[in-house]
Amino acid sequence: MEVIHTIKEMRQLIASWRKEGKTIGLVPTMGWLHEGHFSLIREAKEQCEKVVVSIFVNPLQFGQGEDYEEYPRNLSRDAEGAKTAGAQVIFAPAVKEMYPQGFKTFVEVERITEKLCGASRPGHFRGVCTVVSKLLNIVQPDQAFLGQKDAQQVAVIKAMVKDLNMPIEIKVAPIVREADGLAMSSRNVYLSAEQRKTALVLSRALEEGEKLILAGERKTDRIKKMIEQVIKPEEMVKIDYIALCCGEELEEVEELSEQGQCLLALAAFVGKTRLIDNLVVGW
Amino acid sequence: MEVIHTIKEMRQLIASWRKEGKTIGLVPTMGWLHEGHFSLIREAKEQCEKVVVSIFVNPLQFGQGEDYEEYPRNLSRDAEGAKTAGAQVIFAPAVKEMYPQGFKTFVEVERITEKLCGASRPGHFRGVCTVVSKLLNIVQPDQAFLGQKDAQQVAVIKAMVKDLNMPIEIKVAPIVREADGLAMSSRNVYLSAEQRKTALVLSRALEEGEKLILAGERKTDRIKKMIEQVIKPEEMVKIDYIALCCGEELEEVEELSEQGQCLLALAAFVGKTRLIDNLVVGW
Repeated sequence: MEVIHTIKEMRQLIASWRKEGKTIGLVPTMGWLHEGHFSLIREAKEQCEKVVVSIFVNPLQFGQGEDYEEYPRNLSRDAEGAKTAGAQVIFAPAVKEMYPQGFKTFVEVERITEKLCGASRPGHFRGVCTVVSKLLNIVQPDQAFLGQKDAQQVAVIKAMVKDLNMPIEIKVAPIVREADGLAMSSRNVYLSAEQRKTALVLSRALEEGEKLILAGERKTDRIKKMIEQVIKPEEMVKIDYIALCCGEELEEVEELSEQGQCLLALAAFVGKTRLIDNLVVGW
Repeated sequence: MEVIHTIKEMRQLIASWRKEGKTIGLVPTMGWLHEGHFSLIREAKEQCEKVVVSIFVNPLQFGQGEDYEEYPRNLSRDAEGAKTAGAQVIFAPAVKEMYPQGFKTFVEVERITEKLCGASRPGHFRGVCTVVSKLLNIVQPDQAFLGQKDAQQVAVIKAMVKDLNMPIEIKVAPIVREADGLAMSSRNVYLSAEQRKTALVLSRALEEGEKLILAGERKTDRIKKMIEQVIKPEEMVKIDYIALCCGEELEEVEELSEQGQCLLALAAFVGKTRLIDNLVVGW
């Protein structure tokens, strides 16, 4: 598996592929790849002739006191997994390669970045948008593949690509879950056996919320309350937010419309580990 | 002369050129083209097989109370001039085409945007960077051509392109001046005959500053003082700033180094018209 560490070499490879008329897919990741990432890589391989997986733990999207230092890393294992899933190359630049001295340009999406995860993680999406802009400009893919697990990130990057007229198609693949329902996340590795078990309450709570909507409940307060009540008994879990959002703007409403679709999203700390999960519910 | 108003049509033309393997140059402008713009177009024609001139008076880079509404516009005259200078196509989108409802993404360069024009025009460079990002993503040129007249804009866009790894080369062409020394600007049209004459003091003052540097003066305070003294007698002129800046960061120093190069830049109101001018001085 080829692992490229410099922007220059990445550009050269891309240029040679372009010359051959190949279509290119990018799967941007922070590494510690799991089945969720692999599903994106397989989808990219399905759609594009060449697949680049970027692995970069982006310091810009971590806040103070967050887990930038501890974030799990294992490039050789990731390379192996990405290869098996169908990638041609890993792009794994160093922090200095991406943010050399004097770096001072940032991409910001307003409004939809201020709620949900953006409210608890100020600057997070600014970091995400800036690094994704860079990756898209370096790799110049036809399509980029994102996981629905990071639902707000998907909405933010879609807005950015649309607003800035980036010539790229954003593809979104569904959340991949463990057999017991826990959404796959690189951060699951932080969980103790007990926490791991407790964390199941998050997907269970979302399902209870979904049931309530499908049963006809339209008041979002009541739906959120129900989700909260499912989680509350677990003392190890601290809810960050529970939200029902509609449309591209992730608008939070008091009452759902008669027919429609919404994003049921939550974030919670299980011990010190912040986990997110969501369901798209249509009724 | 082909004038394209939609992003979709522009992309189609670019795609057809790319298929033919053509190199593409972009000259981004706000229209009301003058000899300065034409020199950029001619340079673009020299370097690239196809030349796009964008004409878009970008509301995002105008502050409250600035001249967005009054900014001179004449698309048919511009199209004629751009054609003569060697452009293949004008891209002249409407404001709604560039900023449809829900637009919320912005590109920001820090630090070097806070001084000089950025200090008097908060948000200006954010508007510039955002629209230039969009234009570069729409046209996807090999090279973009900017005028040294907007020296800070050049520094800011170079920083943005470098930081975000945009696959584009920025070319800079020298200031074009009227026979009597006034830097060409679309805003010169605002000047009355008397103001037009008075405005000459700006380029004269920069030249006096240059002479002082070449004569060995290294204290930037004294150089700025000299420039100020040349302008002061003109009651119609109100100085916004006078600055000596070094390097990519436009660093303002107290004392120039023994050998080097700096940007001697100023902005001033002549009546209600804000004009800028600069000289690159090497010694």
